[in-house]
Amino acid sequence: MIYITRREHFNAAHKLFNPDWTEDKNNEVFGKCANPNWHGHNYNLYVTVKGNVNPETGYSVNLKELSSIIRTYITDKLDHKNLNLDVDFMKGLMPSTENVAIAIWKELLPHVNKLDCKLHSVKLFETENNYVEYFGE
Amino acid sequence: MIYITRREHFNAAHKLFNPDWTEDKNNEVFGKCANPNWHGHNYNLYVTVKGNVNPETGYSVNLKELSSIIRTYITDKLDHKNLNLDVDFMKGLMPSTENVAIAIWKELLPHVNKLDCKLHSVKLFETENNYVEYFGE
Amino acid sequence: MIYITRREHFNAAHKLFNPDWTEDKNNEVFGKCANPNWHGHNYNLYVTVKGNVNPETGYSVNLKELSSIIRTYITDKLDHKNLNLDVDFMKGLMPSTENVAIAIWKELLPHVNKLDCKLHSVKLFETENNYVEYFGE
Amino acid sequence: MIYITRREHFNAAHKLFNPDWTEDKNNEVFGKCANPNWHGHNYNLYVTVKGNVNPETGYSVNLKELSSIIRTYITDKLDHKNLNLDVDFMKGLMPSTENVAIAIWKELLPHVNKLDCKLHSVKLFETENNYVEYFGE
Amino acid sequence: MIYITRREHFNAAHKLFNPDWTEDKNNEVFGKCANPNWHGHNYNLYVTVKGNVNPETGYSVNLKELSSIIRTYITDKLDHKNLNLDVDFMKGLMPSTENVAIAIWKELLPHVNKLDCKLHSVKLFETENNYVEYFGE
Amino acid sequence: MIYITRREHFNAAHKLFNPDWTEDKNNEVFGKCANPNWHGHNYNLYVTVKGNVNPETGYSVNLKELSSIIRTYITDKLDHKNLNLDVDFMKGLMPSTENVAIAIWKELLPHVNKLDCKLHSVKLFETENNYVEYFGE
Repeated sequence: MIYITRREHFNAAHKLFNPDWTEDKNNEVFGKCANPNWHGHNYNLYVTVKGNVNPETGYSVNLKELSSIIRTYITDKLDHKNLNLDVDFMKGLMPSTENVAIAIWKELLPHVNKLDCKLHSVKLFETENNYVEYFGE
Repeated sequence: MIYITRREHFNAAHKLFNPDWTEDKNNEVFGKCANPNWHGHNYNLYVTVKGNVNPETGYSVNLKELSSIIRTYITDKLDHKNLNLDVDFMKGLMPSTENVAIAIWKELLPHVNKLDCKLHSVKLFETENNYVEYFGE
Repeated sequence: MIYITRREHFNAAHKLFNPDWTEDKNNEVFGKCANPNWHGHNYNLYVTVKGNVNPETGYSVNLKELSSIIRTYITDKLDHKNLNLDVDFMKGLMPSTENVAIAIWKELLPHVNKLDCKLHSVKLFETENNYVEYFGE
Repeated sequence: MIYITRREHFNAAHKLFNPDWTEDKNNEVFGKCANPNWHGHNYNLYVTVKGNVNPETGYSVNLKELSSIIRTYITDKLDHKNLNLDVDFMKGLMPSTENVAIAIWKELLPHVNKLDCKLHSVKLFETENNYVEYFGE
Repeated sequence: MIYITRREHFNAAHKLFNPDWTEDKNNEVFGKCANPNWHGHNYNLYVTVKGNVNPETGYSVNLKELSSIIRTYITDKLDHKNLNLDVDFMKGLMPSTENVAIAIWKELLPHVNKLDCKLHSVKLFETENNYVEYFGE
Repeated sequence: MIYITRREHFNAAHKLFNPDWTEDKNNEVFGKCANPNWHGHNYNLYVTVKGNVNPETGYSVNLKELSSIIRTYITDKLDHKNLNLDVDFMKGLMPSTENVAIAIWKELLPHVNKLDCKLHSVKLFETENNYVEYFGE
């Protein structure tokens, strides 16, 4: 069993704002992240899968295929987008780093399951100072 | 004469869209950057000043002062903001990396001029793959 | 359950020197790190906590609070300090990267326990080539 | 129990090519990596060991010793080499990142076992976008 | 006048070996870089152009076009290649970082000249410890 | 003419304290950097030389020689040292980043002058947020 990780990235706008709350409560909890006119980030996404090494290829997974899956189902839908408004699989979710990472896991899972490996983790950097990691449970 | 550089950063939303053009022409020129719902970046800003070394301090400039100026006049106004909508000194400007860097230079110049040093350059990274540098002329 | 990490940093002096040993033995074991006049590092500290996502905020933990705890109890006490001489919670400890990381864990634990999450790990980089990670057991 | 990691690096050439396959199949599976005239990478290697802290030294392992073992048995044999042709412990193996990491684990294990710690993982970056991690099982 | 830089990268094999010299002299001058079976690197290439800002776009140059030129004429020809054997514009040249950077300048110049900007510099990192910069004269 | 740069590093302790001033004035000017018990940094040093390419080697300078000079005359004297107390060529100088960079230039110059190239700049990072660059005049 070996773990292999592919990095992809996307640049997106978002805001953290709960419409059920007053503006004051939003500012108290979310601070600058509640700016009504949005802000944004360069997100770095690390997807880790685990599997056995195929002796004919030396590969646990073909990274070209993994990269293609991540781009098709995730980063093509997130890159240069607004995470609150533009992304089908984020509808109704607060676009915190936690929720974006969990949503990415859910989107990737059925596609990674078709490969000879298992999805192990989704790690998402919002800035060089903050990241989350989700293992699916 | 020695050159000293301070890095600060800000996270902001923007879009590149010329309202005098059709949507098609905007998409042709600006591509994904024209997304009407915005996208965003983690910007890294490097401000370089030049001066002589004060023998009593070993400093060409006190970086605490330089950092304070950059934060007060630049990054506090740009961080977690929309570069098209929220920033007084960007009004009417296309928020390309070039224009943001030039606007930062203009805002900083009078404040750096009050220190014992000269503003040498403003270097602005939009992503780890793209940056601009402006020297004031 | 999701894991979220915050990076903070501090710059400090230290030396590795066991006063119960001869100078020769200190030099043999600690090499250049035993320099009696100290040396120092830019330390990067990654604190990871785990918790469930609050559906109202999308947060597992409010990073502003976590950052504030790390700064108040850890980096404000370590930054621009001498790890052998200046830090109350390092008294009597050899300031190896291992011991600094374990001491940080012990200091953070009661404060993180007051948040809706659990302390998962303390990861401390002494240089870009060396780091330790501690999980509390 | 604490985990400590040392980074070393090596620059090497390789190609991914299965001589039992046609050239077309090699190109289909390995793409540009099958170039018959080789290509190469700057590899970053992170070796993590775990152990208890020695109260006399504050060390779980002496990193000078760990670094010396990695250099003697691994990076001196891989650096500025061809992974398909020049490395005794890679003979007969496809030099995928997976297989290089597993081979490094096998080579390191008996030497780390002589220290007061256990080998925990070998993490190998082929590029800043791809890495594998192996835990020995 | 503003300076704008685009990073691209390529992974390649090479060796430094002067066929007019004895093997001993090659080893003395080039050390490990003379390994007959090649070694390789992850190269990072920074291309800087300078120009005036177009008020309609905010661009000095359209980075999509600049990136496309660098990929078409440079990195598509260098990536996953052998710099001694596979690259038309490196024929007969020792593939030192210096010579690769100068050759890249010469290849890029006529294509950048068709844009509304001037080629300012080619900066090429062979490792994180070594880079060259060429300004065309 | 081409510019080539070599990175070396050193870890050192220092403090910024002017003995001709009161403690209050030291704290006002130098802040945390005046801590009497020292603090420290991981310094990254980039030395750039310029020269012509030797057609027999493809080299403007042999980086092994340049690296050896930097290590012998600079980093071996600074690494794991106290910049206020331990370094012959820093005696009597405030160890600000500016003064360390200038002192490194002066020490390197006669040794680089014996190579077929000219010293162009000394760039010294104290942290990832601060660096100085000195060109010798």
